Amino acid sequence: MRFQAVDKTNLVEKVEKRLLDVIRKNHLSIGDGLPSEIELTQKLGVSRSVVREALSRLRMLGVLETRKKRGMIVAEPDVFSSCGRALDTALLNKSAQEDLFEMRLILELGFADLLFLRKTDADLEFLEKIVEKEEKTKSEPARIKLEIKFHKTLYQIAGNDMLLRFQCLLNSFFREAVQREKKNKRYKGNATHRDLLEELQNGTPDGFREKMRSHLSPHLIRLKERSKGD
Amino acid sequence: MRFQAVDKTNLVEKVEKRLLDVIRKNHLSIGDGLPSEIELTQKLGVSRSVVREALSRLRMLGVLETRKKRGMIVAEPDVFSSCGRALDTALLNKSAQEDLFEMRLILELGFADLLFLRKTDADLEFLEKIVEKEEKTKSEPARIKLEIKFHKTLYQIAGNDMLLRFQCLLNSFFREAVQREKKNKRYKGNATHRDLLEELQNGTPDGFREKMRSHLSPHLIRLKERSKGD
Repeated sequence: MRFQAVDKTNLVEKVEKRLLDVIRKNHLSIGDGLPSEIELTQKLGVSRSVVREALSRLRMLGVLETRKKRGMIVAEPDVFSSCGRALDTALLNKSAQEDLFEMRLILELGFADLLFLRKTDADLEFLEKIVEKEEKTKSEPARIKLEIKFHKTLYQIAGNDMLLRFQCLLNSFFREAVQREKKNKRYKGNATHRDLLEELQNGTPDGFREKMRSHLSPHLIRLKERSKGD
Repeated sequence: MRFQAVDKTNLVEKVEKRLLDVIRKNHLSIGDGLPSEIELTQKLGVSRSVVREALSRLRMLGVLETRKKRGMIVAEPDVFSSCGRALDTALLNKSAQEDLFEMRLILELGFADLLFLRKTDADLEFLEKIVEKEEKTKSEPARIKLEIKFHKTLYQIAGNDMLLRFQCLLNSFFREAVQREKKNKRYKGNATHRDLLEELQNGTPDGFREKMRSHLSPHLIRLKERSKGD
């Protein structure tokens, strides 16, 4: 005898899914309106509070937004906005934090081709100024700020909105990692920001990846140790 | 005369933020309980429906979950679960889709070091089987399935949960991209899956990155053309 599993999804989630289906199946696009809360209540045969909660969730995902006098309209979902909120809670466990940190290494080792495709003279001058300032700066907190600015600028040059928003999420982790790295003198990356900049000016994506790998090697060594540990 | 901007955040969002603050400031950790809906209503001085909506949003973010007999408890937020839902709407505009696709290229060019750190003999054997099957398969749909399986396995070997979940998000885009690539014979990557596998067996992260770049070159060329266009 086989029993089909009972659908345990609660009502709000069902209504949320139903609304997403409606948007998809009717090919509603950005700016199109949705029926009012009362209409939806009647059509879906659920209580108004259930409809309201489902709409609220979709607003939070950025799938819908409220416009004065026009009611609910379809919006462009912001893929990372809600991730940011979840991260913000600082509730991520150690392993999720390490995952995030590794994501940073992956991205910075992976975005070289985009950098070479999209770099402009203005970008290179901007990086040049950061590096010059960094080389002259003796104060440790000021240097860390410039260090972060250099990396952030690379994300900007890559010219991918999603990547950039991901970088914003990572920001707090950046700061911690840089500080950890500075404390731990034993791990010192070989390639400097100056080397990375020169490669970006006159080199190739492959060359940039190699230099970036050398620059990030303190972290890669740490990963290796973590892996051996478990 | 200067006027301070009016805070337009709605009540639900304010309650949501307040609850996140409470979790943070009291150092609540995963599994810890939260006051009941009624208690929160009284403490925060807002209506029960506002509290309910805020709790619902936090449940959706994975920050809270409901447990039988224990009420609301703090959960580990799942950074990508809600992104997945937003993506699912297929409402992303062309530019966001291109962004996502570029993210794939960045990740696959960037995860080489993790692959070499975490690969096992079993992983290599698994890849070997995929490649052998692929080399013998003539049916195009079957080949595309194996192509996707090969890349997905690489994400798994990298051993980073966040990366893997991101890959799940990308899955539908993968399929489209592979089909586009197959149609467009003019762009054919030089390095094959066999080359990538051999590099992973006996090579280095740098070598793997170079081969992956050659393998993905059809897409990189497409990016170049897109950049020139705008």
